Amino acid sequence: MSLTSRIDAAVSAALMHAAGGPDAPATLSRALPYACLPGGARIRPTILLSVAMACGDDRPELSDAAAAALELIHCASLVHDDLPCFDDADLRRGKPSVHRAYSEPLAVLTGDSLIILAFDVLAEAAAVAPLRGLELIRTLACRTGMPHGICAGQGWESEAKIDLSAYHRSKTGALFIAATQMGAVAAGQEAEPWAELGDRIGEAFQVADDLRDALGTEASLGKPAHQDDLHGRPNAVTELGVEGAVKRLEDILSGAIASIPSCPGEAMLAGMVRKQAERLTPVLKPARA
Amino acid sequence: MSLTSRIDAAVSAALMHAAGGPDAPATLSRALPYACLPGGARIRPTILLSVAMACGDDRPELSDAAAAALELIHCASLVHDDLPCFDDADLRRGKPSVHRAYSEPLAVLTGDSLIILAFDVLAEAAAVAPLRGLELIRTLACRTGMPHGICAGQGWESEAKIDLSAYHRSKTGALFIAATQMGAVAAGQEAEPWAELGDRIGEAFQVADDLRDALGTEASLGKPAHQDDLHGRPNAVTELGVEGAVKRLEDILSGAIASIPSCPGEAMLAGMVRKQAERLTPVLKPARA
Repeated sequence: MSLTSRIDAAVSAALMHAAGGPDAPATLSRALPYACLPGGARIRPTILLSVAMACGDDRPELSDAAAAALELIHCASLVHDDLPCFDDADLRRGKPSVHRAYSEPLAVLTGDSLIILAFDVLAEAAAVAPLRGLELIRTLACRTGMPHGICAGQGWESEAKIDLSAYHRSKTGALFIAATQMGAVAAGQEAEPWAELGDRIGEAFQVADDLRDALGTEASLGKPAHQDDLHGRPNAVTELGVEGAVKRLEDILSGAIASIPSCPGEAMLAGMVRKQAERLTPVLKPARA
Repeated sequence: MSLTSRIDAAVSAALMHAAGGPDAPATLSRALPYACLPGGARIRPTILLSVAMACGDDRPELSDAAAAALELIHCASLVHDDLPCFDDADLRRGKPSVHRAYSEPLAVLTGDSLIILAFDVLAEAAAVAPLRGLELIRTLACRTGMPHGICAGQGWESEAKIDLSAYHRSKTGALFIAATQMGAVAAGQEAEPWAELGDRIGEAFQVADDLRDALGTEASLGKPAHQDDLHGRPNAVTELGVEGAVKRLEDILSGAIASIPSCPGEAMLAGMVRKQAERLTPVLKPARA
């Protein structure tokens, strides 16, 4: 099964947990899959499963649950970030954002329900390996909540003075660190040696996202372009120009690949990191074979 | 240590997990304890710890974590329910609601962070008893998210046609079922026999809340009164009159007490249920000794 099929199957299976019959509110029941399907690039669960496979993936039901949980948290964060009180975004992945398609109350509840579902899915799958499961839950919570997860990242936007490094690390980097660490933990490896890879992929993703925001169009992105300029947010293209930003992205990718801990699938993993970056950044020239 | 002190200590310890240094956003860091301290009646964690104690409470660090996690979820739900797109409430527990005191973005993030923190606290405490810990996480998730938790309850308010029984069971009852079941699980007992007690306490609480909303004032409640009439929500006092509602409350309490599973602390538990009901409902006459 391809990684994409594995992830789609895992996310769909996770959503089934939250699906109710006539004794559940029908509209909220529809809003949950709406927020998650069809998916975006699924880059975080792809990294997670790639790391798990590079480490042997001896508990695939656990790595599947981890991939689904991470993607659910990512989708929840998109639903809440799109709310009128944050980005007030009308579009997401080429269709109306959840609060536009349903309502603001249902968007708040969709995000809440997806966060809860993520932890439920991990706890259920943990039956096969309780200690790994508990560490997956703790890792996901650490990278999602306060003081260092994506909630903290979003919280920085309410501060008069922003610590840019802490802001980027928590807002964008946190879920990439979760991806590499959870992949390793699901396969029975230690989390700590995998933090640097996630951190660097997060940095690369930030620069790639800056490039796409600066160079893309609403049609090509499936969401409004030029939002960083509009909201006065820092952007690597504004700072370094297109060529400078591409150069920085190349440097970060080299560092990311160099940081991969020794494991059976090291070379495969390096290829995946490069491929994901090229997929997200059409201005990046494919590496020479 | 009194139950109240145990709960306060557990909630404060839980909040310390989310407290960051200068590398965390300061305002969101302040909003989390603001939303939880000082507490309200703490009725859910009181029930949880009472059940745990009635069952022997052989892992007090686990029941403390469970009590804190349940209270964090309850506080998160209050913060989100108070948002302008739901109840638009200015006051909560006698002080400005979180979105009034901080901002709407920070209120969304405070709720999200408290939900995540609840699962983190349980996963950390689970180190002493992994299987109990995982069941606590699953029980809390089941009673909080979709399709039958408090998110579902709130989701019913967006439906044109409301299933009143499902609505009350999920909106109010769910966290009381979580309270009795988590208390039992933390002490190594099965969850299932404890569902009925939680369900009945939830019904009793609903009628007690209806009485308080109908008879109270903003000053006595620490939040706006007569909200059910204002929002056209069903209320037992509107339906049955004050005397009829008090009679129904008495009947539900008798059923609740009769449903307590056989355990060493059965009599103590019956006393606690009665006492909590009297505390919440001044119109209820104290039971004859």
